[in-house]
Amino acid sequence: MAFSEQTDEAFLEELAAYVAIPSVSRDADADTMRRAAEWLVAHLGFADVEIAETGGHPVVTGSYLRDPSLPTVLIYGHYDVQPTGDLDEWNSSPFTLTRQGDVALGRGISDDKGPVYIVLKALEAIIEQDGVLPLNLKFLFEGEEEIGSPSLPSFVAREAERLACDLVISADGAMWRASEPSLSLTSKGLISFDLIANGAEIDLHSGRYGGTVANPIHALVQVIDSMRTPNGAICVEGFYDGIGELSDARREELAKVDFSDEEFLGPFGVRRPHGEPGYTTLERLWERPTLEVNGISGGGKYTVIPHQAVAYLSCRLVRGQDPNAVIQAIERHVKAQETPGVTVSIEFDPPRLPAYFVDANHPSILAAKAALEVVYPGQEVLLAAIAGTLPASTLFEEVLGAKTLFFSFSTSDERLHAPNEYLRIRRLREGMVAWSALMYELGRRPELRRQP
Amino acid sequence: MAFSEQTDEAFLEELAAYVAIPSVSRDADADTMRRAAEWLVAHLGFADVEIAETGGHPVVTGSYLRDPSLPTVLIYGHYDVQPTGDLDEWNSSPFTLTRQGDVALGRGISDDKGPVYIVLKALEAIIEQDGVLPLNLKFLFEGEEEIGSPSLPSFVAREAERLACDLVISADGAMWRASEPSLSLTSKGLISFDLIANGAEIDLHSGRYGGTVANPIHALVQVIDSMRTPNGAICVEGFYDGIGELSDARREELAKVDFSDEEFLGPFGVRRPHGEPGYTTLERLWERPTLEVNGISGGGKYTVIPHQAVAYLSCRLVRGQDPNAVIQAIERHVKAQETPGVTVSIEFDPPRLPAYFVDANHPSILAAKAALEVVYPGQEVLLAAIAGTLPASTLFEEVLGAKTLFFSFSTSDERLHAPNEYLRIRRLREGMVAWSALMYELGRRPELRRQP
Repeated sequence: MAFSEQTDEAFLEELAAYVAIPSVSRDADADTMRRAAEWLVAHLGFADVEIAETGGHPVVTGSYLRDPSLPTVLIYGHYDVQPTGDLDEWNSSPFTLTRQGDVALGRGISDDKGPVYIVLKALEAIIEQDGVLPLNLKFLFEGEEEIGSPSLPSFVAREAERLACDLVISADGAMWRASEPSLSLTSKGLISFDLIANGAEIDLHSGRYGGTVANPIHALVQVIDSMRTPNGAICVEGFYDGIGELSDARREELAKVDFSDEEFLGPFGVRRPHGEPGYTTLERLWERPTLEVNGISGGGKYTVIPHQAVAYLSCRLVRGQDPNAVIQAIERHVKAQETPGVTVSIEFDPPRLPAYFVDANHPSILAAKAALEVVYPGQEVLLAAIAGTLPASTLFEEVLGAKTLFFSFSTSDERLHAPNEYLRIRRLREGMVAWSALMYELGRRPELRRQP
Repeated sequence: MAFSEQTDEAFLEELAAYVAIPSVSRDADADTMRRAAEWLVAHLGFADVEIAETGGHPVVTGSYLRDPSLPTVLIYGHYDVQPTGDLDEWNSSPFTLTRQGDVALGRGISDDKGPVYIVLKALEAIIEQDGVLPLNLKFLFEGEEEIGSPSLPSFVAREAERLACDLVISADGAMWRASEPSLSLTSKGLISFDLIANGAEIDLHSGRYGGTVANPIHALVQVIDSMRTPNGAICVEGFYDGIGELSDARREELAKVDFSDEEFLGPFGVRRPHGEPGYTTLERLWERPTLEVNGISGGGKYTVIPHQAVAYLSCRLVRGQDPNAVIQAIERHVKAQETPGVTVSIEFDPPRLPAYFVDANHPSILAAKAALEVVYPGQEVLLAAIAGTLPASTLFEEVLGAKTLFFSFSTSDERLHAPNEYLRIRRLREGMVAWSALMYELGRRPELRRQP
């Protein structure tokens, strides 16, 4: 049944079955992950689809090839979700889609199960109406996005020919906000690493050895503290290298965006924004890199001097920053810290992703603008940025030579990765309308085709 | 059977049954704790004993009153143990006494089950030989020492009359080391507290909010880093107030102690000692206070800006420091730190213990020296310090007016509170001989009696 004839309740019922599969890529067993992949296969009946092995969690891949003269678009998304975190912080059971007024709660509902569901329903409706789709489609839904897509690069490299396309559309990557239509032209890069501080070989009783041995937590804390000012400026020499000055023109553009610190952060009880001095909140969010400790642990609530303490840090990079150069700068900085009695080592995770960007006049952006106009008539489409990282887009550019259009109806305030993740219910229908329109728009833009 | 006729194997078999009871005061259920208490009762058959309720884990209390003209000694110890910590770090099952060459492993075997077992065996042997004990004894074994003895103060206050004594002997508090006999004249005080850093109300995705909100881990790290220099000197203004200058005479005494940094710390893979500049390792250990982070946690290995980070810190105090003044100094210091966007609060645990000390010429010290001479003939008894805290001794002095003699055959290097806690097997027999001798020594010292 075409979505236009379906109720919201019917949408939520369908989506609930998908949310109910606890496809946490970090923890779930292979069977659970496969069930999520199979749910996708079951909803791609109009295409030639398969579940392909990767060595990690499998990908769902497929194609609908109508006419070689039409553009070919690869739709990307992921079926895995983040861990739930502390269950006590959830107001509902994370894998039970739960309606609360205008929103629905559930782990993965906004990232990325809801947005992928929107695509499937939009395509289903076009086929029901027209019998065919207005362009050629390929599909690639992975199961490891939330753990850094470790298997995706080799899979895409191996299957590059089969995945060849003129454009990728990502159903992942939240829209800037719910109050106005927007498209993102950039996403930030990412590096992440562990800092590991080792002291004695074993935990020592602070009442037997206190005052005589170095404490790895103190050393770790010292190293972390040296990396930023209390105001959030990053003190790692060379970290900002390569980033262009923020132009007056861009500052003016951003100043025109209807943005309020209070609206942006108030919902989380944050009374004042925080970050690198000299920039507005929006400038920092869209244009400036970050360095954050995401986790720290060591010892416990008992009187030991622990033998080890560990922190996990990540940096979001912007255009101009070379991930390898940033890594070297951080390594130099950490090595330069004196932590007598404690060895602080650093272990970078494999992904070293530069920032990604697409031109505002790229045909996919023009098509997407037109599609948004259908759903949000008369509203100007804001050209925004994604402060997060979509590693797949860099990969697709490097391996497939195709740009990626971010076209998601998730919204960035929907507690992605946190307890009580939610999706605005109205966005389901809006997304389906927009995706339908986008398919038609792209189908009539032969200029998208990269090869004759 | 008197211990002199028993083999080490027989000791270990008896002790194994006590170690097998996982009486972790932090976690264990009431039944488990009671089983440990009952083990003690079963081994105190010669006395009038009972398990007394406290509101927390019960205490084992009792008396053996032979003759009011003899000194009355209260023997103190504890039947609870520390948590095991990470089981992967144990070479054996923590609650299965496991012999490894000259030592036996097990949680609590050195702190405090082995040392208490020694006392029971010594008393058993005297009674078997003489039919009576040479003095009046009272007993107090608690089940909450490892969690800061929350119920002990009110119990001792309530039962002060019943516990009245001339001297307390603590079977808790490790001996300085295994290579020479020693007695401790002081133990350090203790305060402990949580630092709690709160930012946003929920964890925020670092790819959506990075660069715009304060990160509680960074703020916490900043506050902790401000409290000590990298060399371990404490920067909290007022922290050292009240401590006398370390005299040249005491420095000389300590310099004469056969002490090597390498022997003391080498077994734990520590190549160089660490701590407050201007003092030797032994001076820091025995004469100087500490401030250590024992635990820290926040966020995790995923890209969030956590909403909270928490650290647990403790300070070991020395003679002259007023715990309440130190607490105020720390509070002032924490309040003075600027952590924009993050609220750092401080919660002190209830125990606020000053350092404890007894005079070198106290009759109990003279008696203990004589008893050690029996086991270690010709070896000078070192007058040492306990770098840890024995809150009970302060309590006994305040409420019962009695000094506490620390007389334990645990040794401070036996991985107390850490994985692979062990006890030197030979110390069981040495301890039994010494405790027997001590009982006779005290029995013939009427000057111990505080009241006629």
